[in-house]
Order: sequence, then C-alpha cells, then structure tokens
Amino acid sequence: MALKTVLIIYAHHSPSSFNAAAKDVAMQTLTAQGFKVIVSDLYAMNFRSSATAADIKSNLKNPEHFLYGDETFIAWKEDRLSDDIKEEQRKVAEADLIIFQFPLYWFTVPAIMKGWMERVLTQGFAYTLESIYDNGILKDKKAVLSFTTGGMESMYLPDGLNGDINVMLWPLQNGVLRFCGFQVLAPQIFWCVADAPPSERTAMLEAWQARLKGMLDEQPLSFAPTKLFDLSVQGGFRLCSDMKEAYASQPYGLTTGQHLGKPLPPNNQMKASPHDNH
Amino acid sequence: MALKTVLIIYAHHSPSSFNAAAKDVAMQTLTAQGFKVIVSDLYAMNFRSSATAADIKSNLKNPEHFLYGDETFIAWKEDRLSDDIKEEQRKVAEADLIIFQFPLYWFTVPAIMKGWMERVLTQGFAYTLESIYDNGILKDKKAVLSFTTGGMESMYLPDGLNGDINVMLWPLQNGVLRFCGFQVLAPQIFWCVADAPPSERTAMLEAWQARLKGMLDEQPLSFAPTKLFDLSVQGGFRLCSDMKEAYASQPYGLTTGQHLGKPLPPNNQMKASPHDNH
Repeated sequence: MALKTVLIIYAHHSPSSFNAAAKDVAMQTLTAQGFKVIVSDLYAMNFRSSATAADIKSNLKNPEHFLYGDETFIAWKEDRLSDDIKEEQRKVAEADLIIFQFPLYWFTVPAIMKGWMERVLTQGFAYTLESIYDNGILKDKKAVLSFTTGGMESMYLPDGLNGDINVMLWPLQNGVLRFCGFQVLAPQIFWCVADAPPSERTAMLEAWQARLKGMLDEQPLSFAPTKLFDLSVQGGFRLCSDMKEAYASQPYGLTTGQHLGKPLPPNNQMKASPHDNH
Repeated sequence: MALKTVLIIYAHHSPSSFNAAAKDVAMQTLTAQGFKVIVSDLYAMNFRSSATAADIKSNLKNPEHFLYGDETFIAWKEDRLSDDIKEEQRKVAEADLIIFQFPLYWFTVPAIMKGWMERVLTQGFAYTLESIYDNGILKDKKAVLSFTTGGMESMYLPDGLNGDINVMLWPLQNGVLRFCGFQVLAPQIFWCVADAPPSERTAMLEAWQARLKGMLDEQPLSFAPTKLFDLSVQGGFRLCSDMKEAYASQPYGLTTGQHLGKPLPPNNQMKASPHDNH
C-alpha cells in the first residue's frame, strides 16, 4: 500500500488552545502510524480569506464584469491561479483524508476557513457542472469536520434551542464536502470545551486519538445516492418519484424530510457559551 | 415617525453584476421613500475577513492564550475594538433594517461577509449569554438575506439534489441573525440569474423593487418562541415537553422535526450552475 497522506486545515490563533491540542494529537497519532501529515495553519500563514481578483495572475477575461467563479475556472485551466491557491490545491491533490480543525464560529467554520474553501475548491479542480456529489472530482478522498463548540450538546438536538446539529452541518457536509465528492466521515465534536476541567479535556483528546487510529477505515456518513435524482433540467434535479418511498423507510435516509447524514450518538456534556473560541 | 435607516451589507466585486443592480434598486427605492440608506461595500472597502488580534487595540488580556471571542468581548466593553469594526457597529446601531446582498458562495454567504459577521457582531454589542434569540440585543431591528443562486429553485426543494433551502439557510437565519435578536424577513432569492435573459432579470428587479416598498411593514418569519424552551443547564435548553405537541401542529412551527421558518412560495425558474457568482 502506498503511503497515505492526511492534510489538516487548521484555524485557531493560539498554540495553547484546545484546537491546537486536537491538531497536535492528530499529527502525532497519524505520523506514528506511518502517514504523511501536512498542516495548513491558516492564521499562521496569514491565509487570505477574501476571494478577489488577486487570486488570478494576469489576463482577466472580463475585467469590466468580474465574476470570481468564472475567472477562477478559466485561470485553473490555464494555470494562472495565485501561488497560494496552487500550493493548497497541491496539498489537497496529495491527500487521502482532510481534517478540518476549528472552533465553531457562528454555527459554521471561521471566515478564514470559509475563504480557504472558496479560494481552493475552484471549479475544474474540485468539481465541474457534470461532476458533483457521488461523481465529484474529489470522490476518492475522505474529509472530516473536527470542531469545538461553546454550547452543550442538548442545545443542538432537534428540539434544542439551536436546532439539530445535522441541520447546522448540512451546508458544510453536504454542500461543500460532498458536493466535491468527498466521502464525509462523522464529525468529531468537542462539546463545551470552555467549561471542561482538565481531566475531561484529556479524556476528549484520548477519545480523538483512539478514533484517529482507525479513521481511514471508517464508513462515511450515508447520503441519498446521486443516482436516485433525475439530473436533468426537465426533472429539476429532484429525487425520482419511485425512489422517494423506498428511500424514506431507510434508517439514515430522508430523515426529517431532508436527506441528512447519520445522526450522532448521544453524548451529553456540560454547558458553556453558545459561541466558541477555544 | 423618526427617519428610518436601512443598512445594506453588500458583497460583490463588480458594479455591473446583478447583485450590484439589486443593491442599487434597494438604494434608490428606499431613498425615494424617505429612508436613510447606508451601504457597506465590503470588497470596495477591502474589508478584512479574518478575525485576528489586529481587531483589538492594545492590551490583550491573555496574549499567551489568545481567544478571539473573549478578547473582543472585553475590548467592546473597554472601547478598544479596531476602528473599522466600531464604524460598522455604529452603522448597525443606527439601522432599523439590514439587507445582506450577496451571491451564494458554497451554500452560504461569501467569506468576506462571514468575516463581517464574525468581527462586527461581537458579544456585548450583538448578544450576551443572557440575551439571545427573542431576547437578543438587536431585537428591535429587522434583517433580510437577499442573494443570487446558480442553481434552479427545484434543486433546493426538500427532495432536490441540494436539499431544502430552509435547511441551507438555517445556520444564517436562525444561527446568526435570530441569535442576535433580529426579526428575520423572508429571504429574497434571485434564482438562476446567470441563465436569465435580460427581460427576466428586469422582472426580478421590478419584483424586488415592489417588495422593498412595503418591506419595513412585513411580518418576520416565524420561529419557535424562545420562551418555549427551558433555558437552564438542567433543562438542557430544550423545548419544554408540554409545548412540543402543541407547537408541532402549527403550520410554520416545528416543520420537519426542526423549528424552521416559513416555507417559500413555489417559484420555479431556469437551471444554471450549482454555484453562483453573479
């Protein structure tokens, strides 16, 4: 078996944060297992968050009417993307697994990580209009969101104040990762780190370490297979009608009217702030 | 009645884009009606997207273990936030309505707008741990997401390839806006602008103009009232059990197991790319 490579996209300012510890545990555990580990430390790199014309080297096709997606698609084809984007794309191309390690900021990734997604996962590189979801260009790779929360887990139940964690993660897990083809592994959620005593933090990191040892062999979350949809303009890209009933009865299929991933195991922990920065 | 103020947070690079046209229509229509209109043109302002220590003037409380949320909360209290954040907070404080105008990037706002949310809506200014959702600090203000999509509307139905638009918007509408107290108006969605012929674009802008004329009088989307939840650590911030059944039977209440907003009226339009930059 060829050497496997893991890329960690990491977004925390402080080397003494819990997120840093989670990133370090992943580096050490995976390296010890013989993986090559690459880290993109976004704040330390001063990674540019905003998607702008500076991402394209020379020769904008339509400078009078600049459309970022169109221009970066052409730039990707002509090898004119900025060097920092090309470097990240090289890392993604090499990776078998990407771990996104971050504190939850406003119920999603920090802006600097959203900027990484916007700038690196360009059309052509990560998807084409014909190659999305099950057919996405990055379909041989795995990805996992690993993050800390401020709020306690029960706040993220379907009847919790913030609503279902699966709903909250849908735009990221289905909308970004699976759209590009990634096999999405169950999220690693460190609940309420701010209020956790040292022993509990240690236990959380040990559980993360144990999971990492088998991570490359995990089954990804289940989503409705793309082949069940009528991928034509006439069909409106909707689930084929004969599939609806059959699929709805499956345990992890069209739950709550949405084709969501597998629900998380219950794991109630302590309360903390509804926002996190640890 | 005092003069009403509308703030438009605008994120598109090109003055010739459809998003620019939608922003201009809002400016003109609202100004003609006697409103004061303020625009934050994020790309033109070169607005900083990344939340960093540069957002705090001097005297970090804990530079060895920098936590953005903690430091900005203290800096807000001590009037030590950076000038660009303070300027945006002054605009928000003055606004009765905020319109977020943007192209959908990866199923949510562009990173530069996410950065605006992270940096401007600090603890203390937009919420405290005691003042969230119905009790959020900004509860006397309204907010609306106005955006263009690449994909056709049917892709965003519950059985559409991308999943329910209400689920996609949940982290923004409930998670960012309503969390701070904003009364969230129904989103203004310009479907498939890329493929729309000029006459259709004109019709979309005219519909937007017509809506803007009555926008300040619109009823906001309905969400499960915060008072239905048990806001204690013991209660886990979950919906009170006696409320569950009663609320579930309401038309726009706990739809699909989630306390989502009002569904959108059907309005099928043309297909385009699943990503948008217009």
